[in-house]
Amino acid sequence: MFGLLGETDLTSPHRDSGATLSEQMSACGVDMGRIESGKPVRRPDDFHAWVELHIEQGPVLIAKEKPVGIVTGIRGNVRHRRVVCRGQPAHSGAVPRWLRHDAVLAMSELLMRLDEHWRILLAWGEDLVFTTGIVETDPQEHAVSRVPGQVTFAIEYRSQDKKTLENFGKLLETECDKIAAERGVAFELGSPVKTEPARMSDDLIALAEDQARAAEIDYEVMPSGAGHDTAVFANAGVPATMVFVRNDKGSHNPDERMDMDDFYTGTEVLARTLIAAASSDEGNENER
Amino acid sequence: MFGLLGETDLTSPHRDSGATLSEQMSACGVDMGRIESGKPVRRPDDFHAWVELHIEQGPVLIAKEKPVGIVTGIRGNVRHRRVVCRGQPAHSGAVPRWLRHDAVLAMSELLMRLDEHWRILLAWGEDLVFTTGIVETDPQEHAVSRVPGQVTFAIEYRSQDKKTLENFGKLLETECDKIAAERGVAFELGSPVKTEPARMSDDLIALAEDQARAAEIDYEVMPSGAGHDTAVFANAGVPATMVFVRNDKGSHNPDERMDMDDFYTGTEVLARTLIAAASSDEGNENER
Repeated sequence: MFGLLGETDLTSPHRDSGATLSEQMSACGVDMGRIESGKPVRRPDDFHAWVELHIEQGPVLIAKEKPVGIVTGIRGNVRHRRVVCRGQPAHSGAVPRWLRHDAVLAMSELLMRLDEHWRILLAWGEDLVFTTGIVETDPQEHAVSRVPGQVTFAIEYRSQDKKTLENFGKLLETECDKIAAERGVAFELGSPVKTEPARMSDDLIALAEDQARAAEIDYEVMPSGAGHDTAVFANAGVPATMVFVRNDKGSHNPDERMDMDDFYTGTEVLARTLIAAASSDEGNENER
Repeated sequence: MFGLLGETDLTSPHRDSGATLSEQMSACGVDMGRIESGKPVRRPDDFHAWVELHIEQGPVLIAKEKPVGIVTGIRGNVRHRRVVCRGQPAHSGAVPRWLRHDAVLAMSELLMRLDEHWRILLAWGEDLVFTTGIVETDPQEHAVSRVPGQVTFAIEYRSQDKKTLENFGKLLETECDKIAAERGVAFELGSPVKTEPARMSDDLIALAEDQARAAEIDYEVMPSGAGHDTAVFANAGVPATMVFVRNDKGSHNPDERMDMDDFYTGTEVLARTLIAAASSDEGNENER
């Protein structure tokens, strides 16, 4: 749409079929010459506003007992897929506490410090989630009676605010340094993979809220934790937001479902917002 | 020696050769009828005292720059080989902190609480080591972008004091209950495997210290973290202690080594202690 597909996007093979995106788009009849030129099919200025309807992929609306959500931003994320903490392996019986460099305890301290920072940052009103989804000691080395000399783990954090991601990244490095010095271990964070967050339009959010209230629909104002096409429009400069429909079963999986009443409610907020936006000044300032 | 070998000890197959202990002892010419009867070859009352010379299998003597150690007790241990913490898997972007049940953070909190208890118990003068040597999230389930629903890990703690092992075990259960309630997770500790600690004889320790001082040998009074034959004599009622020789390379491995000067120093403490014990009243009260 916006001419953003690069060489790597177009030529990387699919992990199952091996076909490239370029080949598959060609097979659908797309003029690849135009795509490869990087020339936009539509310019951001062509859009007055952008509103996307989507099921929620988390449990917030169910927990809050509200049928729809109005989205304030799409969280970007920073991923350290493989953090290594190196300490020193040792006999678990013969080595006292003051001579240990225990990698697992060092990792645990790091995670507890970050968990506490997370709690406080939320109380300050920041948007943030933080996850360590993978933890592994080395199966070739570890034993019940061995002080662990190494542990690898993942760190991922997400926020709709770029500044929060940057600050949490600095906090991560500072805490690693402090624990490394205190416990005689070393952390290797590696290079993180980053996805930029996208802010929704404050004006469009206010408009959607007005419309929901006018229709007496109970709603929650909330961030989106998962990525969505809307992020591309928002980051291209198009005023954008999303309407979420209650569902805590994720999406793109067999359990995905929603009550049809909730779907109609979400559709009503979408339709009202689009109609109101079309007749308002609260759209794209650069619109042609 | 003391008729303590039971059916299981004698008939379990060796993990490599498959031969039983009974078969291998027979092959060495041992009268297995007598062993199987459970009748002691020597009674504890036959021994006036017991002193064993052994290399240290930890780094304490090297760190303290002392050639020998005099052993106060042989640590027993409690092993939970596979503790499971169950939380709830979830999308790392879409599920906020207040709706999470993160198994890895719950485990980390448990380990940090136990680490802090350990620090305080040492300051109180208790003998204790605590180790989590194995940690694993489920490779079939875990992902960088998934709140971990499960983690398995090992817990081992050792002390030369039975009461300290019992109390630390209670502390472990209490902390699991508290964290489970706060974080909405469940801990399954399983049945631990226990090895009893053995206390050395205070009189014999004092005698060995006197002899080391008389010979102007610098020594450290210390527990043994690893198990030794001496534990069997001590727990059978024979006054016992051990003399350690400086070595931080473990034992039963190719790196095991010690300075021969340290070995001579250890041997001198052993010989002096044995001679002094033989001519003293500080031996076995039940001795025949």
